[in-house]
Amino acid sequence: MKSFIEVSPDSDFPIQNLPYGVFSKPGDETRRIGVAIGDQVLDLSAIRHLFTGPILSSQQDVFAKPSLNALMALGRPAWTEARETIQKLLSADEPTLRDNQELRAAALVPQADVTMHLPAEVGDYTDFYSSREHASNLGSMFRDPSNPLLPNWLHIPVGYHGRASSVVISGTPLHRPCGQTRPNNGPVLACCHNRCALTGSVECGQGNVLQGMLVWLAMTSHVALESGRLSTTLCREKVPPSHGALHGVYCHSHRHPALSTLDAVVPPSVVVVASEPAPLPYLKHDDPYSFDIKLSVKIVPEGGSGKVVANTNFKHMYWTMKQQLAHHTITGCNVRPGDLMGSGTISGTDPSAYGSMIELSWKGTKELDVGDGEKRKFLKDGDTVVLAGHCQGDGYRVGFGQCSGKVLPARVRVD
Amino acid sequence: MKSFIEVSPDSDFPIQNLPYGVFSKPGDETRRIGVAIGDQVLDLSAIRHLFTGPILSSQQDVFAKPSLNALMALGRPAWTEARETIQKLLSADEPTLRDNQELRAAALVPQADVTMHLPAEVGDYTDFYSSREHASNLGSMFRDPSNPLLPNWLHIPVGYHGRASSVVISGTPLHRPCGQTRPNNGPVLACCHNRCALTGSVECGQGNVLQGMLVWLAMTSHVALESGRLSTTLCREKVPPSHGALHGVYCHSHRHPALSTLDAVVPPSVVVVASEPAPLPYLKHDDPYSFDIKLSVKIVPEGGSGKVVANTNFKHMYWTMKQQLAHHTITGCNVRPGDLMGSGTISGTDPSAYGSMIELSWKGTKELDVGDGEKRKFLKDGDTVVLAGHCQGDGYRVGFGQCSGKVLPARVRVD
Repeated sequence: MKSFIEVSPDSDFPIQNLPYGVFSKPGDETRRIGVAIGDQVLDLSAIRHLFTGPILSSQQDVFAKPSLNALMALGRPAWTEARETIQKLLSADEPTLRDNQELRAAALVPQADVTMHLPAEVGDYTDFYSSREHASNLGSMFRDPSNPLLPNWLHIPVGYHGRASSVVISGTPLHRPCGQTRPNNGPVLACCHNRCALTGSVECGQGNVLQGMLVWLAMTSHVALESGRLSTTLCREKVPPSHGALHGVYCHSHRHPALSTLDAVVPPSVVVVASEPAPLPYLKHDDPYSFDIKLSVKIVPEGGSGKVVANTNFKHMYWTMKQQLAHHTITGCNVRPGDLMGSGTISGTDPSAYGSMIELSWKGTKELDVGDGEKRKFLKDGDTVVLAGHCQGDGYRVGFGQCSGKVLPARVRVD
Repeated sequence: MKSFIEVSPDSDFPIQNLPYGVFSKPGDETRRIGVAIGDQVLDLSAIRHLFTGPILSSQQDVFAKPSLNALMALGRPAWTEARETIQKLLSADEPTLRDNQELRAAALVPQADVTMHLPAEVGDYTDFYSSREHASNLGSMFRDPSNPLLPNWLHIPVGYHGRASSVVISGTPLHRPCGQTRPNNGPVLACCHNRCALTGSVECGQGNVLQGMLVWLAMTSHVALESGRLSTTLCREKVPPSHGALHGVYCHSHRHPALSTLDAVVPPSVVVVASEPAPLPYLKHDDPYSFDIKLSVKIVPEGGSGKVVANTNFKHMYWTMKQQLAHHTITGCNVRPGDLMGSGTISGTDPSAYGSMIELSWKGTKELDVGDGEKRKFLKDGDTVVLAGHCQGDGYRVGFGQCSGKVLPARVRVD
């Protein structure tokens, strides 16, 4: 399948991908829904009258909204119909858009000229912890290397509530966070300094869940105040009977602006590993539901060009997105269009596939070469974390673009 | 101060209160902003042209929105101006509304005829745990009676992220939740049965925080799967290195539809207790910021009239709402108009002032007389929990109405 719009072979956005996003044009604050194609954005609000399929002909207004929530709420049959319509309109042998210069001028905008916004209003944000290697590494570091994984981890997809207000668009800088620490005896207010544990990690998110279908993929990053025994607010807050940490892992969750649909992702080729112990029936499914999505983490020191410090893969998940959703809703919990569920940091078995800084530097005991003659145990002010992800199709690439966040100094001066 | 609208002396809604809410009229789904006055609702969208003060004359559109978020975003000076305008328009000696029969017919609607909706879109919902007696009781029951309060509790207002989707309007029934339990060895899926720990608790929430001002008060109730050692999902999820429980305390947070402003609350008369140990400077404030709000919890068995089982007071808070907000934002966390922060269950020292079922029945070891010849250790299907709260002014009562939720059987059949 080819588009009449030229797409370079290494582009993240061929006609097989068509990720959705919300953008605005220069000098016009109106937020519009679009899809990426090559180095262009197709403005769906400008061509909404062309969605004439059985479902969308009466729902064209969803493409004129300032967020994707209304389209999400229509469910997967509508998304599949939308994808088919857009693919047809963009294909090389379809004249409707190709030969209408006026419509092309109105509907196609160079990506370089647009401002991207969060694609959906996130109602609730849940972060899971579903990579066995990651959970084991953290357990080894902070608890017991001989028994790194606690028994409950193998029975439930552990997760916690994040803060929807912390979900920000890629490119948003992050101020170094502050909080109570207890370096000796009494508590003090301190900021997470360079030597302290500000880490980044890589994960994938499902951006919408509806009718049992898990359809949107987003790439998110955390630049988070991981603490463990480092005596920050987090471990002071996790002490039972607290129901969990308020601070610590929610500074920012950076989200790439483009959401790819599962229809675009290369079909699941990885069979779900039979879990041992077997999960309870409500957590069982037989269809393969892992995805071969290559993920990379790069650290770029201020003014430098940086270096990729880890290569991991979405397929290293122990609990699938289906299992996460089943567990999330088994209590009766309601889920709304736009809700975001993160996979949690994804690590592979090889140290080069560890998905978080805290693992890569093994709690600050190892130095990491980040290029430009620089070494890091933790992130420094001025560092930028850049995540990238893609699936490799047969002769094309379904990319999730890049997701980045720069660390700025703390806003609170406490010392 | 008197209104031309008759208000009975025991009404929750005299002219001194004027709580905001969002309602719709019979046969018309349009959501409108209104204030309660006696047994009427004043539709602010119908009188928005009368907000002619310096701030609101250019912001009248905020009263035509389907939620209070836009009004919240204007900040406290705008809310004070709105209150003064509404009080003047409703006062006995002001003819503008009083003598305009057409406008009265359009703008005043009997409360009995309206449907109430959630007053604001809740972006994020944080629940604190700020009553020392409540935290000590839970610590005694589930940990160590000789050392019920862990040291971190006295240094930070402990809180956790709730789920915004779980915030529901008063009157919404709650289905008994299900989850993994481990009665003997292996895990099983089970529903929280009658003998199990479904509890209700009483708390207050600040519904908006902006510019350092804490202005809206809402009354919320939890009907929650408290578990502790009762082997439910919650305690399986709290095991470190988890950052906290996903399930357990977020089934439903019922919210009364009317939000009173702090301007309406009887001025703080309770001096903040000097904390020992002294809090860190960022958590210190000198002004009194406790409020004498009487709170009650009633349990009504199916078909019965029920009985008040606890009387407590918002003044029993160790950490004030100012301290909660300061702690919440010290990391750099952003807070948006409409965000909800709950106080956590509020308990007094006397057992009759315990604010949760789990304390009242002391973990199911005591039976509670709930009237109608019924006794309870935990909530049964068909029980309704009814919360009420009010401040007593000099000759008037600033009430928060009633907030209720009925327990329905589990939706998932697992046995």
